[in-house]
Amino acid sequence: MDVDALVEGVLAGDRRMIARAISFVEDGRPELSALSAGIFPQTGRAATVGLTGAPGVGKSTLAASLVTQARARSLRVAVLAVDPTSPYTGGALLGDRVRMQEHATDPDVFIRSMATRGHLGGMALAAPEAVRILDAAGYDVVVIETVGVGQAEVDVAAATDTAVVVLAPGLGDAVQMAKAGILEVADVFVVNKGDREGAAEVVRELRQMLHLGAARDWEPPVLTTTSTTHDGVEVLWTEIERHRAWATEAGELARKRRGRLLHEVEALAAERFKLAAAARLGRDDALIADLDQRRLDPYRVAEELVRQAAEDG
Amino acid sequence: MDVDALVEGVLAGDRRMIARAISFVEDGRPELSALSAGIFPQTGRAATVGLTGAPGVGKSTLAASLVTQARARSLRVAVLAVDPTSPYTGGALLGDRVRMQEHATDPDVFIRSMATRGHLGGMALAAPEAVRILDAAGYDVVVIETVGVGQAEVDVAAATDTAVVVLAPGLGDAVQMAKAGILEVADVFVVNKGDREGAAEVVRELRQMLHLGAARDWEPPVLTTTSTTHDGVEVLWTEIERHRAWATEAGELARKRRGRLLHEVEALAAERFKLAAAARLGRDDALIADLDQRRLDPYRVAEELVRQAAEDG
Repeated sequence: MDVDALVEGVLAGDRRMIARAISFVEDGRPELSALSAGIFPQTGRAATVGLTGAPGVGKSTLAASLVTQARARSLRVAVLAVDPTSPYTGGALLGDRVRMQEHATDPDVFIRSMATRGHLGGMALAAPEAVRILDAAGYDVVVIETVGVGQAEVDVAAATDTAVVVLAPGLGDAVQMAKAGILEVADVFVVNKGDREGAAEVVRELRQMLHLGAARDWEPPVLTTTSTTHDGVEVLWTEIERHRAWATEAGELARKRRGRLLHEVEALAAERFKLAAAARLGRDDALIADLDQRRLDPYRVAEELVRQAAEDG
Repeated sequence: MDVDALVEGVLAGDRRMIARAISFVEDGRPELSALSAGIFPQTGRAATVGLTGAPGVGKSTLAASLVTQARARSLRVAVLAVDPTSPYTGGALLGDRVRMQEHATDPDVFIRSMATRGHLGGMALAAPEAVRILDAAGYDVVVIETVGVGQAEVDVAAATDTAVVVLAPGLGDAVQMAKAGILEVADVFVVNKGDREGAAEVVRELRQMLHLGAARDWEPPVLTTTSTTHDGVEVLWTEIERHRAWATEAGELARKRRGRLLHEVEALAAERFKLAAAARLGRDDALIADLDQRRLDPYRVAEELVRQAAEDG
């Protein structure tokens, strides 16, 4: 596969080429570096929205609703569902995407589940690269939906222009969300399944909890949606736009984007170094024996690897 | 604080010193390297058990039940609850630990919530170091309970001798767990809240899902517990012991331990390198401008950082 042709295809918005480029990211293909170089100059235009929250709160349905909102405004929109690899469930994930079927034939909508089978640094590094591909391909809005509520997933959702944290009655209350560390990354809160018993209580509990936090320049709104009926989703869209306008005006967007780009570069460099260090350690039987026999502790061995790398230059 | 005294205190099982040593890990103190060197030779004896699952399945109560089992066998036991840092909830976490209060006065039980405020590499690197402290302090069993079900949390739970994945009816079904990638790390499955409606269905669903996976040398048992009444927890304990006996016999335990130690060393080395790379990047205005102006893509800049580190050796 010619990388130049791939870059050209992505920039032209060719869906098959976009899909292939994202597969390159998933697999951590060596051509990634050339692909990244080719598309990077054409990125930075798309508005990115993160959707995170406990399994079962209805993130997929909400993402489908946001697609409807984007299309009503004639915006081209992509949805990236970031799933960890699981050998047990090749098929289960696709079932979820069924709700997206109404958009499947729309040429201005691109939907993709993404796992990280081979990318160095896992989804924290793979997701931003996939988003750049969609950005370069001309999508105006990229929605990133994460599965799970762990630190890595929160980091992925937080690395967007507007992070939306989704809750639902009976599925992980605000205290549980706080424990998972996801409340503080939210630019917008959504209590989905708003037609269910307990929704108003989740909203109240969440607002109380937010009052405990330090005052911030942007006060994240707490909205209620029922994504199956699209209730409240238009307000959600408006609030996402309002956040983006504020962040742009306040310089927060530029600051956030630059910060996460520097972070990404540092993490990429560390992953490259790690590969080299692992290879070096694998060849160094004496060093492994020192570790096995508990003569040298992990910190000491790590220092030794850093020192050797600098020496061998 | 004299690190030698701290090491001595930990090895003597002094609770105050153990607590302080774990705080050193949380904060990523520079003395960590010396602390690690001091205790490492005295580690490798403790049996470690990971407890992971969605928020609300009852992991804390189950951990308290396991403590009761350990104490009935006169084993010294430590529980490490790994929580991501959250500025909003200093107090909320302590509430959960209330169930542990029955063990609070037992000198042979050590309970600790752990966040990762400053440790390089986050909890994936901090947790194993904290476990080694508890191991060196003479605890026979160390239970690590994770909050959240993300990739990082799964990795922490998987980095134990026996990983227990906890589910409960109505709180993240097996399909959702599979999506979070946690089914494949399980050595033992527990459906907690076994007295609730739907428990038998979760067990059935889980067994069906496991049948879809490849055959393995160890078939993870699927157990039912009701941790509030301790029902089924004795069987859980027995199955954890059975897994450990199998893993020891099959050589799987030694292989797993060595593998995760090498992994940890490589990750530590990469984190050290990353710090240096970040400092270098921060000083290099020309390189940052290249990134800002999109003249150099993230991969190219990362390569440049690795190259410079080797050159500057």
